[in-house]
Amino acid sequence: MKLRLQITLAFSLLSGSLLAQIPALERVEPAFWWVGFKNPKVQLIVHGNQISGKTVSLNYPGVKLSAVHKVENANYLFLDLSVNAATRPGKFPIVFKQAGKKDLVYTYELKQRNKGTDWAQGVTNKDLIYLLMPDRFSNGDQTNDVVPGMLETGLHRDSMYSRHGGDIQGLINHLGYLKDLGVTALWMTPEIENDEPHASYHGYAVTDYYHIDRRFGTNDLFKTYVAKSHQLGLKVIKDLVHNHIGTESWLIQDMPMKSWVHQWPKYTNSNFRDAAVMDPHGSAADRKQMLDGWFDKRMADVNQTNPYVQNYLTQNHIWWVEYAGIDGLRLDTYPYNDPVYMADWAKKLKSEFPHLSIFGETLVWSVANQAYFTQGNTVNRGFDTQLPGITDAQIKDAITEALNGKEGWTDGVNRLYNIVAQDFMYQDATRNTIFLDNHDMSRFYSVVGEDFTKFKSGIAMLLTMRGVPQMYYGDEILMKGYSNPDGLVREDFPGGWAGDKKDKFTAEGRNAQENEAFNYVRTLANYRKNTAALQTGKLQQYIPRNGIYTYFRYDAQKTVMIAYNGNEKEAVLNTDYFTERMAGFNTGINVITNEEIATLKQLSIPAKTTLIIELSK
Amino acid sequence: MKLRLQITLAFSLLSGSLLAQIPALERVEPAFWWVGFKNPKVQLIVHGNQISGKTVSLNYPGVKLSAVHKVENANYLFLDLSVNAATRPGKFPIVFKQAGKKDLVYTYELKQRNKGTDWAQGVTNKDLIYLLMPDRFSNGDQTNDVVPGMLETGLHRDSMYSRHGGDIQGLINHLGYLKDLGVTALWMTPEIENDEPHASYHGYAVTDYYHIDRRFGTNDLFKTYVAKSHQLGLKVIKDLVHNHIGTESWLIQDMPMKSWVHQWPKYTNSNFRDAAVMDPHGSAADRKQMLDGWFDKRMADVNQTNPYVQNYLTQNHIWWVEYAGIDGLRLDTYPYNDPVYMADWAKKLKSEFPHLSIFGETLVWSVANQAYFTQGNTVNRGFDTQLPGITDAQIKDAITEALNGKEGWTDGVNRLYNIVAQDFMYQDATRNTIFLDNHDMSRFYSVVGEDFTKFKSGIAMLLTMRGVPQMYYGDEILMKGYSNPDGLVREDFPGGWAGDKKDKFTAEGRNAQENEAFNYVRTLANYRKNTAALQTGKLQQYIPRNGIYTYFRYDAQKTVMIAYNGNEKEAVLNTDYFTERMAGFNTGINVITNEEIATLKQLSIPAKTTLIIELSK
Repeated sequence: MKLRLQITLAFSLLSGSLLAQIPALERVEPAFWWVGFKNPKVQLIVHGNQISGKTVSLNYPGVKLSAVHKVENANYLFLDLSVNAATRPGKFPIVFKQAGKKDLVYTYELKQRNKGTDWAQGVTNKDLIYLLMPDRFSNGDQTNDVVPGMLETGLHRDSMYSRHGGDIQGLINHLGYLKDLGVTALWMTPEIENDEPHASYHGYAVTDYYHIDRRFGTNDLFKTYVAKSHQLGLKVIKDLVHNHIGTESWLIQDMPMKSWVHQWPKYTNSNFRDAAVMDPHGSAADRKQMLDGWFDKRMADVNQTNPYVQNYLTQNHIWWVEYAGIDGLRLDTYPYNDPVYMADWAKKLKSEFPHLSIFGETLVWSVANQAYFTQGNTVNRGFDTQLPGITDAQIKDAITEALNGKEGWTDGVNRLYNIVAQDFMYQDATRNTIFLDNHDMSRFYSVVGEDFTKFKSGIAMLLTMRGVPQMYYGDEILMKGYSNPDGLVREDFPGGWAGDKKDKFTAEGRNAQENEAFNYVRTLANYRKNTAALQTGKLQQYIPRNGIYTYFRYDAQKTVMIAYNGNEKEAVLNTDYFTERMAGFNTGINVITNEEIATLKQLSIPAKTTLIIELSK
Repeated sequence: MKLRLQITLAFSLLSGSLLAQIPALERVEPAFWWVGFKNPKVQLIVHGNQISGKTVSLNYPGVKLSAVHKVENANYLFLDLSVNAATRPGKFPIVFKQAGKKDLVYTYELKQRNKGTDWAQGVTNKDLIYLLMPDRFSNGDQTNDVVPGMLETGLHRDSMYSRHGGDIQGLINHLGYLKDLGVTALWMTPEIENDEPHASYHGYAVTDYYHIDRRFGTNDLFKTYVAKSHQLGLKVIKDLVHNHIGTESWLIQDMPMKSWVHQWPKYTNSNFRDAAVMDPHGSAADRKQMLDGWFDKRMADVNQTNPYVQNYLTQNHIWWVEYAGIDGLRLDTYPYNDPVYMADWAKKLKSEFPHLSIFGETLVWSVANQAYFTQGNTVNRGFDTQLPGITDAQIKDAITEALNGKEGWTDGVNRLYNIVAQDFMYQDATRNTIFLDNHDMSRFYSVVGEDFTKFKSGIAMLLTMRGVPQMYYGDEILMKGYSNPDGLVREDFPGGWAGDKKDKFTAEGRNAQENEAFNYVRTLANYRKNTAALQTGKLQQYIPRNGIYTYFRYDAQKTVMIAYNGNEKEAVLNTDYFTERMAGFNTGINVITNEEIATLKQLSIPAKTTLIIELSK
């Protein structure tokens, strides 16, 4: 596929006769913009048949057309606009003239910025994120299941790589369920158009940056989804893909310039080695392949050193935040992106939206490698990535090790202790997104061998550890599956489709153990929601004693003790060592059962169980 | 033992009547000093029966007695001297007076500093360090095997924890052997007095900081050993123990003050958790136990926050460097020491001896934890340890994994690649001491299952990787043994004792394979000695390809390629990917066999084998 495409591209750029046949004015992006950004500049990409032969003009007080760029492909123009802060919102024509041809006119609009306090609020450690794949969560609108004219037309719920019909309306229909569960922030895998012939459901092969995939809904519906979420106190995270672009995108099918993506003499994958980015002894070849190699044959590697690309992506992301009021951004495949561009991008986004939260996907080896990508230049010699948060896979692995591993000097519970201690490498580890699983990983309940005690302990640690906890849809109802192949961790949420045999969105549809799991999550998530100590409180951890890992979350109001017994049998925790945190506290409340604990001197903890105790005087 | 001792100490400090009965003037330390240090101050510790009742005076141009400190124990005085830079070297009396008693006089000497270029030269990546335990290397002087009056009197070569009789003269006798092997620096485990009743051979329970253990030799002989080493171009490293002190030391038996060491209500070990030092979420209790807990019942934990202790240790170390001309210092159990003191100590030593090298023992978990202890504040938030180098156990583990492990994303050769890539966390990883084993670890030949191919590959990587390589005595003759119990990796070097059945210091005494091992080390060590590219040259490594890990060491003169095949069978390395380093080179020389390699295009490498090729045009 890729080879054919590259040949086409090469030819199209060499020979005008092979230019794509498109309308005289196919599209202008961003389709509209706002007055009042700190950065007065916006660069419009104009795509139209032989548009580069036209002269461009506009006349609107406060707006200056400072440059018109022609590029390799005559079907493109790039217009640099400068929008004075005092400009009045409104519409004006942009006129494209060519001798002997009819004028083309595009009516551009500059809107007033939204000043609502629920606009770009930021997702923080006060929140609990729920990650879902929109195609697999709930089908709320059957009319959009198959959209004529799109490349993937089938709907096959029995095939893991096909579309299943889930959509934004389905999610909207279950906001109440999520609110009840105690979730406070939603993260969908990309809902942006992926008009690819195969496996288009996952969303990471973007074909149109400015439109929600029609099988998920419309831009308007997306905006409605954000508004309804905000009304319920739920924040919204958008999943952005800087690194690659679906090869069916109009930007690839008729490229502005060859250098829009990284070109290779023959198809070349990334080597997928984050180490090659940070290695002071690394080769230019390995680094280039890591950063510029393609993620997949259908995902061309976007060239983020191209200034047109930089403007295009950055503006698109600013556009979505301002358009819909998105609260946080998740950046896909972070280490594969150009570091200098990404730092500049983050500065620009943070400048326009001071509360917006941002975290990057960093599935890398070791805490140091994770920390390398975080802002503050704490381990990354001489370069500040400007990235506030990352996906903390190291904590995930360490919790798994604490649950499944055998205690050793750095194994079992000691691994978790050691990993948490490595927080010294972050400017602020409380911005890390912590999780037990996600759409690329084996589901947590399977990872712990469907051991329900371990499951609860994992949830307990997730919801009491420092950072921004993130659950994966269905964890709360004990969904299972291994990540190889992917699809098995991306099954439909039972009850999300009309006619599903069981509706596990309801207590009636869940079996007893699923209800116990759901209630465990709900109890703890709602306790967390009302307990600042677990959100923003300090963390103090102790070296594991007697196979028991103990930590505290505390602030001026409350102290919560968390003790996990990693042994295969019941063990006793003598608490006299913990006077720094426990002095003055004599009793406690078991946060899950609400039972009073009459004395804290010695705590008997069953095997693999986590006690969560709110301490009392 | 410890409990009895602590009771005694507590009483002795509470009650004058239990003061040790010692001569009127038992000792003054440092016994002499030098003119010309940057720091004009020196603090003398004076130990004598009820010495605190006396007044002190001295009269020597340029020397000022700026303070006399009485402490808890009346048997001590601390004298603060200030030595003007213009002071003439010479001797002068320090007079101790008390009404009705005869004056005591100590003749103090201020010597001229040694300006020789072989004084405190520094051990760098140009060197190859040979670590040995003096009791186990060679017995060159049988007259000192048993010293009457010392607590451990036996000599039992068949007992791993007893003294075996090796000594400094034994080492002196084999300097030629070491020079021939290609070694350029010697590191003995501590040769300082350890007058302990049991296991005194290892040297880490110091009882007299200013005297070589008489069973190893004398201070004069030590100085001779350094001088003879220097004459042969061999540098000398001294192994220093800041953290603990043998409980039989005079400083413990009649303590200046209770706070000379860390006191605990009952005997308390360190928790041996370096993480507790760096953990931003850690408890004060865990940190205190890590730093102040005792290393062993017979090794009291020295209180490095005590200013008298600080002066005492720092001066002692300056004294030895200046006295004998030591080139480098190795700091035992580095993470257990007080960080603020150690940084101050390092600044002072570096100030007086700009070329002196220093590295700390850091047997910790992860590269980040190692880097935490190194200078430059690269990962240690807000605090500069001032420590130039560390023992790089992570490279050791990674080489072992490359040799013994099965290839995986971060296993086998990929582990080594990833660990080396983490050099971004150091200010300068070339100051790290790299090694395959030492006196606390299973011997390398045993670790690789006595696989001779792996052994050679390990040696090859040790002598071509960045850093300061360190061998452990007997590695070159395939000595074996596992570290549990210790003694089995501390066996005598065969031939080091008169009457030994085999003398493996000679080719005749070694069997064929031992000679092959010896010659392999010698060939490569001597090649390294003459190849700046392998010493100070840059390192470039590549992501392993086809199970083969490839790196280059290069400078303007030479490029050396090192390729290790981690597969279980022969594999082919296509070198066209390495153009950054190989462009212009067409042939090469196998550094071990001296054979010419006619073409570099494809290299066939047998299983587990490392090729070392000097590239040619």
